[in-house]
Amino acid sequence: MSLKLYCDLMSQPSRALYILLNSIKCEFEPKLVDLRAAEHYSEEYTAINRFQKVPVIDHKGFILTESIAILKYLSRENIIPESLYPKESKAQARVEEFLEWQHAGLRLHCAMYFRVKYLNPVMFGKPADPSSLVGYKSRMEAALTEFDTKWLGRGNDFITGNSPTVADLVAACELEQPRMAGYEPSENFKNIDVWWKKVRQHFNPYYDEGHVIVNKILKKNAKAASKL
Amino acid sequence: MSLKLYCDLMSQPSRALYILLNSIKCEFEPKLVDLRAAEHYSEEYTAINRFQKVPVIDHKGFILTESIAILKYLSRENIIPESLYPKESKAQARVEEFLEWQHAGLRLHCAMYFRVKYLNPVMFGKPADPSSLVGYKSRMEAALTEFDTKWLGRGNDFITGNSPTVADLVAACELEQPRMAGYEPSENFKNIDVWWKKVRQHFNPYYDEGHVIVNKILKKNAKAASKL
Repeated sequence: MSLKLYCDLMSQPSRALYILLNSIKCEFEPKLVDLRAAEHYSEEYTAINRFQKVPVIDHKGFILTESIAILKYLSRENIIPESLYPKESKAQARVEEFLEWQHAGLRLHCAMYFRVKYLNPVMFGKPADPSSLVGYKSRMEAALTEFDTKWLGRGNDFITGNSPTVADLVAACELEQPRMAGYEPSENFKNIDVWWKKVRQHFNPYYDEGHVIVNKILKKNAKAASKL
Repeated sequence: MSLKLYCDLMSQPSRALYILLNSIKCEFEPKLVDLRAAEHYSEEYTAINRFQKVPVIDHKGFILTESIAILKYLSRENIIPESLYPKESKAQARVEEFLEWQHAGLRLHCAMYFRVKYLNPVMFGKPADPSSLVGYKSRMEAALTEFDTKWLGRGNDFITGNSPTVADLVAACELEQPRMAGYEPSENFKNIDVWWKKVRQHFNPYYDEGHVIVNKILKKNAKAASKL
Protein backbone atom coordinates (compact mmCIF):
# COMPACT_ATOMS: atom_id res chain seq x y z
CA MET A 1 0.00 0.00 0.00
CA SER A 2 1.30 3.47 -0.82
CA LEU A 3 0.72 4.87 2.69
CA LYS A 4 1.86 3.26 5.94
CA LEU A 5 1.15 4.71 9.39
CA TYR A 6 3.44 3.65 12.24
CA CYS A 7 1.39 4.20 15.37
CA ASP A 8 0.30 3.10 18.84
CA LEU A 9 -3.25 3.91 19.87
CA MET A 10 -2.05 4.93 23.34
CA SER A 11 -0.37 7.92 21.67
CA GLN A 12 -2.68 10.90 21.09
CA PRO A 13 -1.17 12.13 17.78
CA SER A 14 -1.15 8.52 16.53
CA ARG A 15 -4.87 8.32 17.22
CA ALA A 16 -5.56 11.65 15.51
CA LEU A 17 -3.93 10.43 12.29
CA TYR A 18 -5.47 6.95 12.53
CA ILE A 19 -8.98 8.34 13.01
CA LEU A 20 -8.49 10.96 10.32
CA LEU A 21 -7.26 8.51 7.66
CA ASN A 22 -10.10 6.10 8.43
CA SER A 23 -12.76 8.82 8.45
CA ILE A 24 -11.70 10.14 5.04
CA LYS A 25 -11.64 6.56 3.69
CA CYS A 26 -7.95 6.78 2.81
CA GLU A 27 -6.46 3.35 2.27
CA PHE A 28 -3.44 2.90 4.48
CA GLU A 29 -1.54 0.16 6.22
CA PRO A 30 -1.41 0.62 10.02
CA LYS A 31 1.93 -0.60 11.40
CA LEU A 32 1.48 -0.99 15.14
CA VAL A 33 4.52 -0.02 17.23
CA ASP A 34 3.96 -1.27 20.77
CA LEU A 35 5.33 1.46 23.04
CA ARG A 36 4.76 -0.63 26.18
CA ALA A 37 6.93 -3.37 24.69
CA ALA A 38 9.55 -0.67 23.86
CA GLU A 39 9.32 -1.52 20.16
CA HIS A 40 10.07 2.13 19.36
CA TYR A 41 13.57 1.64 20.78
CA SER A 42 14.34 -1.33 18.51
CA GLU A 43 17.11 -1.04 15.93
CA GLU A 44 14.60 -1.69 13.16
CA TYR A 45 12.28 1.15 14.23
CA THR A 46 15.15 3.54 14.99
CA ALA A 47 16.20 3.14 11.35
CA ILE A 48 12.72 4.39 10.39
CA ASN A 49 12.54 7.17 12.99
CA ARG A 50 15.78 8.29 14.65
CA PHE A 51 13.68 10.07 17.29
CA GLN A 52 12.12 6.72 18.34
CA LYS A 53 8.62 8.14 18.51
CA VAL A 54 5.23 7.58 16.92
CA PRO A 55 3.47 8.48 14.67
CA VAL A 56 5.45 8.26 11.45
CA ILE A 57 4.25 7.91 7.89
CA ASP A 58 5.87 6.19 4.96
CA HIS A 59 4.29 7.58 1.79
CA LYS A 60 5.67 5.82 -1.27
CA GLY A 61 9.03 5.57 0.49
CA PHE A 62 9.03 9.14 1.88
CA ILE A 63 9.30 8.82 5.64
CA LEU A 64 8.05 11.72 7.75
CA THR A 65 7.84 12.24 11.52
CA GLU A 66 5.96 14.86 13.60
CA SER A 67 2.17 14.55 13.43
CA ILE A 68 1.52 18.21 12.58
CA ALA A 69 4.09 18.18 9.76
CA ILE A 70 2.42 14.95 8.57
CA LEU A 71 -1.00 16.63 8.51
CA LYS A 72 0.39 19.53 6.45
CA TYR A 73 2.07 17.16 4.01
CA LEU A 74 -1.06 15.02 3.58
CA SER A 75 -3.07 18.17 2.93
CA ARG A 76 -0.62 19.33 0.25
CA GLU A 77 -0.74 15.87 -1.31
CA ASN A 78 -4.56 16.22 -1.48
CA ILE A 79 -5.04 13.20 0.77
CA ILE A 80 -6.85 15.27 3.43
CA PRO A 81 -9.93 17.00 1.95
CA GLU A 82 -10.09 20.78 1.92
CA SER A 83 -13.10 20.74 4.28
CA LEU A 84 -10.86 19.39 7.07
CA TYR A 85 -7.69 21.30 6.13
CA PRO A 86 -8.49 24.53 4.26
CA LYS A 87 -6.46 25.51 1.20
CA GLU A 88 -7.38 29.21 1.26
CA SER A 89 -4.44 31.02 2.83
CA LYS A 90 -6.16 32.84 5.71
CA ALA A 91 -8.46 29.95 6.64
CA GLN A 92 -5.43 27.65 6.57
CA ALA A 93 -3.54 30.10 8.79
CA ARG A 94 -6.34 29.96 11.39
CA VAL A 95 -6.13 26.15 11.56
CA GLU A 96 -2.33 26.27 11.73
CA GLU A 97 -2.43 28.98 14.41
CA PHE A 98 -4.17 26.42 16.60
CA LEU A 99 -1.93 23.52 15.53
CA GLU A 100 1.14 25.54 16.56
CA TRP A 101 -0.43 26.83 19.79
CA GLN A 102 -1.44 23.38 21.03
CA HIS A 103 2.13 22.03 21.33
CA ALA A 104 3.00 24.03 24.44
CA GLY A 105 -0.49 25.43 25.07
CA LEU A 106 -2.43 22.20 25.55
CA ARG A 107 -0.60 18.98 24.64
CA LEU A 108 2.37 19.47 26.96
CA HIS A 109 0.21 19.92 30.06
CA CYS A 110 -2.34 17.17 29.34
CA ALA A 111 0.44 14.72 28.44
CA MET A 112 2.52 15.54 31.54
CA TYR A 113 -0.44 15.10 33.87
CA PHE A 114 -1.22 11.74 32.23
CA ARG A 115 2.41 10.67 32.51
CA VAL A 116 2.94 11.69 36.12
CA LYS A 117 -0.47 10.63 37.47
CA TYR A 118 -1.10 7.46 35.46
CA LEU A 119 1.75 6.20 33.27
CA ASN A 120 4.74 6.44 35.61
CA PRO A 121 2.95 4.67 38.50
CA VAL A 122 1.78 1.90 36.11
CA MET A 123 5.25 1.54 34.58
CA PHE A 124 7.37 1.87 37.71
CA GLY A 125 4.91 0.82 40.41
CA LYS A 126 5.40 4.00 42.44
CA PRO A 127 2.51 6.38 43.06
CA ALA A 128 2.94 10.01 41.96
CA ASP A 129 4.33 12.46 44.51
CA PRO A 130 1.17 14.33 45.68
CA SER A 131 2.90 17.71 46.04
CA SER A 132 4.36 17.73 42.52
CA LEU A 133 1.05 16.45 41.16
CA VAL A 134 -0.64 19.63 42.43
CA GLY A 135 1.57 21.68 40.09
CA TYR A 136 0.94 19.44 37.08
CA LYS A 137 -2.80 19.54 37.69
CA SER A 138 -2.88 23.28 38.07
CA ARG A 139 -0.86 23.83 34.87
CA MET A 140 -3.19 21.46 33.01
CA GLU A 141 -6.26 23.26 34.32
CA ALA A 142 -4.81 26.62 33.27
CA ALA A 143 -4.26 25.19 29.77
CA LEU A 144 -7.79 23.75 29.66
CA THR A 145 -9.20 27.10 30.80
CA GLU A 146 -7.37 28.86 27.99
CA PHE A 147 -8.62 26.30 25.47
CA ASP A 148 -12.17 26.49 26.84
CA THR A 149 -12.36 30.28 26.76
CA LYS A 150 -9.93 31.55 24.14
CA TRP A 151 -10.37 28.94 21.40
CA LEU A 152 -13.85 27.68 22.23
CA GLY A 153 -16.57 29.86 23.73
CA ARG A 154 -16.39 32.35 20.89
CA GLY A 155 -19.76 31.53 19.35
CA ASN A 156 -18.54 28.86 16.93
CA ASP A 157 -19.32 25.14 16.96
CA PHE A 158 -15.68 24.21 16.36
CA ILE A 159 -12.23 25.71 16.98
CA THR A 160 -11.92 27.81 13.85
CA GLY A 161 -15.54 28.11 12.73
CA ASN A 162 -18.75 26.17 12.29
CA SER A 163 -17.30 23.10 10.64
CA PRO A 164 -14.73 20.70 12.05
CA THR A 165 -11.11 20.66 10.89
CA VAL A 166 -8.01 18.68 11.79
CA ALA A 167 -7.51 21.18 14.66
CA ASP A 168 -10.58 19.79 16.44
CA LEU A 169 -9.48 16.19 16.03
CA VAL A 170 -5.95 16.93 17.29
CA ALA A 171 -7.35 18.73 20.36
CA ALA A 172 -9.95 16.06 21.12
CA CYS A 173 -7.37 13.26 21.06
CA GLU A 174 -5.18 15.20 23.52
CA LEU A 175 -8.06 15.68 25.94
CA GLU A 176 -8.67 11.92 26.12
CA GLN A 177 -5.28 11.52 27.78
CA PRO A 178 -6.04 13.01 31.24
CA ARG A 179 -9.26 10.97 31.33
CA MET A 180 -7.13 7.84 31.73
CA ALA A 181 -5.57 9.55 34.75
CA GLY A 182 -9.02 10.09 36.26
CA TYR A 183 -9.52 13.70 35.20
CA GLU A 184 -12.59 14.48 33.08
CA PRO A 185 -12.16 17.80 31.22
CA SER A 186 -15.82 17.81 30.16
CA GLU A 187 -17.01 17.79 33.77
CA ASN A 188 -15.09 20.95 34.54
CA PHE A 189 -15.30 22.95 31.30
CA LYS A 190 -18.66 23.73 29.77
CA ASN A 191 -17.50 24.77 26.29
CA ILE A 192 -15.23 21.73 26.04
CA ASP A 193 -18.14 19.48 26.97
CA VAL A 194 -20.44 20.86 24.25
CA TRP A 195 -17.69 20.98 21.58
CA TRP A 196 -16.29 17.51 22.34
CA LYS A 197 -19.65 15.82 21.72
CA LYS A 198 -19.80 17.42 18.28
CA VAL A 199 -16.24 16.34 17.42
CA ARG A 200 -16.92 12.76 18.48
CA GLN A 201 -20.16 12.73 16.53
CA HIS A 202 -18.47 14.04 13.39
CA PHE A 203 -15.62 11.53 13.43
CA ASN A 204 -17.57 8.48 14.61
CA PRO A 205 -17.53 5.50 14.31
CA TYR A 206 -13.81 6.04 13.64
CA TYR A 207 -13.29 8.19 16.74
CA ASP A 208 -14.46 5.40 19.05
CA GLU A 209 -12.54 2.81 17.05
CA GLY A 210 -9.33 4.85 17.50
CA HIS A 211 -10.04 5.08 21.23
CA VAL A 212 -10.62 1.37 21.79
CA ILE A 213 -7.57 1.02 24.08
CA VAL A 214 -8.29 4.30 25.89
CA ASN A 215 -11.86 3.15 26.50
CA LYS A 216 -10.70 -0.22 27.80
CA ILE A 217 -8.46 1.54 30.32
CA LEU A 218 -11.34 3.83 31.34
CA LYS A 219 -13.55 0.78 31.96
CA LYS A 220 -10.83 -0.98 33.93
CA ASN A 221 -10.29 2.14 36.06
CA ALA A 222 -14.04 2.45 36.70
CA LYS A 223 -14.26 -1.24 37.73
CA ALA A 224 -11.29 -0.86 40.08
CA ALA A 225 -12.83 2.28 41.61
CA SER A 226 -16.18 0.55 42.18
CA LYS A 227 -14.43 -2.12 44.25
CA LEU A 228 -12.87 0.41 46.62
CA MET B 1 2.47 49.85 5.68
CA SER B 2 0.76 46.60 4.70
CA LEU B 3 2.70 44.45 7.19
CA LYS B 4 3.14 45.18 10.89
CA LEU B 5 5.16 43.02 13.27
CA TYR B 6 4.38 43.24 16.99
CA CYS B 7 7.51 42.09 18.74
CA ASP B 8 10.02 42.40 21.57
CA LEU B 9 13.64 41.57 20.76
CA MET B 10 13.96 39.71 24.08
CA SER B 11 11.58 37.10 22.61
CA GLN B 12 13.25 34.47 20.43
CA PRO B 13 10.43 33.97 17.89
CA SER B 14 10.08 37.77 17.66
CA ARG B 15 13.74 38.00 16.72
CA ALA B 16 13.46 35.20 14.16
CA LEU B 17 10.68 37.05 12.32
CA TYR B 18 12.36 40.46 12.70
CA ILE B 19 15.67 39.17 11.30
CA LEU B 20 13.95 37.24 8.52
CA LEU B 21 11.84 40.17 7.31
CA ASN B 22 14.86 42.48 7.35
CA SER B 23 17.12 39.99 5.60
CA ILE B 24 14.64 39.44 2.75
CA LYS B 25 14.20 43.23 2.44
CA CYS B 26 10.50 43.03 3.19
CA GLU B 27 9.09 46.42 4.14
CA PHE B 28 7.33 46.16 7.47
CA GLU B 29 6.49 48.31 10.45
CA PRO B 30 7.97 46.97 13.70
CA LYS B 31 5.61 47.65 16.61
CA LEU B 32 7.60 47.17 19.79
CA VAL B 33 5.70 45.58 22.67
CA ASP B 34 7.77 46.00 25.83
CA LEU B 35 7.35 42.75 27.75
CA ARG B 36 9.32 44.06 30.76
CA ALA B 37 6.86 46.96 31.02
CA ALA B 38 4.01 44.39 30.76
CA GLU B 39 2.69 46.09 27.63
CA HIS B 40 1.47 42.70 26.39
CA TYR B 41 -1.07 42.65 29.23
CA SER B 42 -2.57 46.03 28.26
CA GLU B 43 -6.18 46.21 27.14
CA GLU B 44 -5.07 47.63 23.77
CA TYR B 45 -2.67 44.75 23.07
CA THR B 46 -5.06 42.09 24.38
CA ALA B 47 -7.52 43.27 21.74
CA ILE B 48 -4.84 42.46 19.13
CA ASN B 49 -3.75 39.17 20.69
CA ARG B 50 -6.03 37.53 23.25
CA PHE B 51 -3.10 35.30 24.25
CA GLN B 52 -1.06 38.38 25.31
CA LYS B 53 2.10 37.16 23.63
CA VAL B 54 4.54 38.24 20.92
CA PRO B 55 5.12 37.99 18.00
CA VAL B 56 1.96 38.87 16.08
CA ILE B 57 1.56 40.10 12.53
CA ASP B 58 -1.07 42.38 11.04
CA HIS B 59 -1.04 41.85 7.28
CA LYS B 60 -3.50 44.20 5.60
CA GLY B 61 -5.79 43.84 8.62
CA PHE B 62 -5.36 40.06 9.00
CA ILE B 63 -4.01 39.48 12.50
CA LEU B 64 -2.14 36.24 13.12
CA THR B 65 -0.38 34.84 16.21
CA GLU B 66 2.07 31.92 16.62
CA SER B 67 5.44 32.45 14.93
CA ILE B 68 5.47 29.14 13.06
CA ALA B 69 1.95 29.70 11.68
CA ILE B 70 3.13 33.20 10.69
CA LEU B 71 6.11 31.75 8.79
CA LYS B 72 3.84 29.36 6.91
CA TYR B 73 1.40 32.14 6.05
CA LEU B 74 4.16 34.49 4.84
CA SER B 75 5.53 31.68 2.69
CA ARG B 76 2.11 31.06 1.09
CA GLU B 77 1.75 34.79 0.51
CA ASN B 78 5.11 34.69 -1.34
CA ILE B 79 6.67 37.12 1.13
CA ILE B 80 9.32 34.58 2.20
CA PRO B 81 11.38 33.40 -0.80
CA GLU B 82 11.30 29.76 -1.79
CA SER B 83 15.02 29.41 -0.99
CA LEU B 84 14.26 29.95 2.71
CA TYR B 85 10.90 28.13 2.79
CA PRO B 86 10.66 25.48 0.07
CA LYS B 87 7.47 25.14 -1.99
CA GLU B 88 8.14 21.60 -3.21
CA SER B 89 6.05 19.31 -1.01
CA LYS B 90 8.73 16.96 0.35
CA ALA B 91 11.35 19.67 0.87
CA GLN B 92 8.71 21.75 2.65
CA ALA B 93 7.81 18.75 4.80
CA ARG B 94 11.45 18.43 5.93
CA VAL B 95 11.53 22.08 7.06
CA GLU B 96 8.16 21.72 8.78
CA GLU B 97 9.25 18.47 10.46
CA PHE B 98 11.89 20.54 12.24
CA LEU B 99 9.56 23.48 12.93
CA GLU B 100 7.12 21.12 14.66
CA TRP B 101 9.82 19.20 16.52
CA GLN B 102 11.45 22.29 17.99
CA HIS B 103 8.42 23.35 20.07
CA ALA B 104 8.85 20.64 22.69
CA GLY B 105 12.19 19.31 21.44
CA LEU B 106 14.31 22.46 21.80
CA ARG B 107 12.44 25.68 22.53
CA LEU B 108 10.72 24.49 25.70
CA HIS B 109 13.96 23.45 27.39
CA CYS B 110 16.11 26.43 26.34
CA ALA B 111 13.35 28.86 27.29
CA MET B 112 12.73 27.24 30.68
CA TYR B 113 16.42 27.28 31.58
CA PHE B 114 16.60 30.96 30.60
CA ARG B 115 13.50 31.74 32.63
CA VAL B 116 14.49 29.87 35.78
CA LYS B 117 18.19 30.76 35.77
CA TYR B 118 18.08 34.37 34.50
CA LEU B 119 14.65 35.93 34.07
CA ASN B 120 12.91 35.00 37.31
CA PRO B 121 15.86 36.13 39.50
CA VAL B 122 16.05 39.45 37.57
CA MET B 123 12.27 39.99 37.78
CA PHE B 124 11.66 38.79 41.34
CA GLY B 125 15.08 39.32 42.93
CA LYS B 126 15.33 35.72 44.14
CA PRO B 127 18.08 33.41 42.89
CA ALA B 128 17.05 30.13 41.28
CA ASP B 129 16.72 27.08 43.52
CA PRO B 130 19.97 25.13 42.79
CA SER B 131 18.38 21.69 43.02
CA SER B 132 15.57 22.44 40.56
CA LEU B 133 18.08 24.18 38.27
CA VAL B 134 19.97 20.88 37.92
CA GLY B 135 16.87 19.31 36.33
CA TYR B 136 16.30 22.24 33.96
CA LYS B 137 19.94 22.20 32.88
CA SER B 138 19.97 18.47 32.31
CA ARG B 139 16.76 18.58 30.24
CA MET B 140 18.21 21.45 28.17
CA GLU B 141 21.45 19.55 27.60
CA ALA B 142 19.51 16.47 26.49
CA ALA B 143 17.60 18.66 24.00
CA LEU B 144 20.84 20.26 22.77
CA THR B 145 22.43 16.81 22.38
CA GLU B 146 19.47 15.67 20.29
CA PHE B 147 19.67 18.82 18.14
CA ASP B 148 23.46 18.50 17.80
CA THR B 149 23.39 14.84 16.75
CA LYS B 150 20.00 14.09 15.19
CA TRP B 151 19.38 17.29 13.23
CA LEU B 152 22.94 18.51 12.77
CA GLY B 153 25.91 16.19 12.41
CA ARG B 154 24.42 14.41 9.42
CA GLY B 155 26.87 15.75 6.88
CA ASN B 156 24.89 18.85 5.86
CA ASP B 157 25.80 22.49 6.45
CA PHE B 158 22.30 23.33 7.68
CA ILE B 159 19.37 21.56 9.32
CA THR B 160 17.65 20.24 6.21
CA GLY B 161 20.43 20.41 3.63
CA ASN B 162 23.26 22.55 2.35
CA SER B 163 21.40 25.85 2.23
CA PRO B 164 19.81 27.71 5.14
CA THR B 165 16.05 27.83 5.67
CA VAL B 166 13.72 29.38 8.22
CA ALA B 167 14.35 26.26 10.34
CA ASP B 168 17.96 27.35 10.94
CA LEU B 169 16.98 30.87 11.90
CA VAL B 170 14.29 29.68 14.32
CA ALA B 171 16.76 27.28 15.98
CA ALA B 172 19.57 29.83 16.18
CA CYS B 173 17.37 32.43 17.88
CA GLU B 174 16.31 29.86 20.48
CA LEU B 175 19.91 28.96 21.29
CA GLU B 176 20.74 32.60 22.07
CA GLN B 177 18.40 32.44 25.06
CA PRO B 178 20.48 30.21 27.40
CA ARG B 179 23.55 32.34 26.59
CA MET B 180 21.94 35.17 28.59
CA ALA B 181 21.71 32.73 31.48
CA GLY B 182 25.45 32.05 31.22
CA TYR B 183 25.26 28.81 29.24
CA GLU B 184 27.12 28.71 25.90
CA PRO B 185 25.76 25.90 23.68
CA SER B 186 28.62 26.32 21.19
CA GLU B 187 31.23 25.56 23.86
CA ASN B 188 29.64 22.20 24.59
CA PHE B 189 28.38 21.04 21.21
CA LYS B 190 30.71 20.84 18.25
CA ASN B 191 28.14 20.57 15.46
CA ILE B 192 26.14 23.45 16.90
CA ASP B 193 29.29 25.58 17.02
CA VAL B 194 30.13 25.00 13.33
CA TRP B 195 26.50 25.37 12.14
CA TRP B 196 25.76 28.48 14.22
CA LYS B 197 28.61 30.45 12.65
CA LYS B 198 27.20 29.70 9.20
CA VAL B 199 23.69 30.76 10.20
CA ARG B 200 24.93 34.04 11.69
CA GLN B 201 27.03 34.69 8.61
CA HIS B 202 24.10 34.07 6.27
CA PHE B 203 21.68 36.33 8.10
CA ASN B 204 24.10 39.12 9.03
CA PRO B 205 24.09 42.08 9.48
CA TYR B 206 20.42 41.51 10.34
CA TYR B 207 21.15 38.68 12.78
CA ASP B 208 23.32 40.91 14.96
CA GLU B 209 20.87 43.79 14.63
CA GLY B 210 18.06 41.55 15.90
CA HIS B 211 20.28 40.47 18.80
CA VAL B 212 21.23 43.97 19.92
CA ILE B 213 19.47 43.61 23.29
CA VAL B 214 20.71 40.05 23.80
CA ASN B 215 24.27 41.19 23.11
CA LYS B 216 23.92 44.11 25.54
CA ILE B 217 22.89 41.68 28.26
CA LEU B 218 25.80 39.38 27.41
CA LYS B 219 28.23 42.31 27.72
CA LYS B 220 26.68 43.39 31.00
CA ASN B 221 26.94 39.84 32.36
CA ALA B 222 30.60 39.59 31.27
CA LYS B 223 31.40 42.93 32.93
CA ALA B 224 29.71 41.86 36.16
CA ALA B 225 31.57 38.51 36.09
CA SER B 226 34.95 40.24 35.56
CA LYS B 227 34.38 42.25 38.76
CA LEU B 228 33.82 39.16 40.88
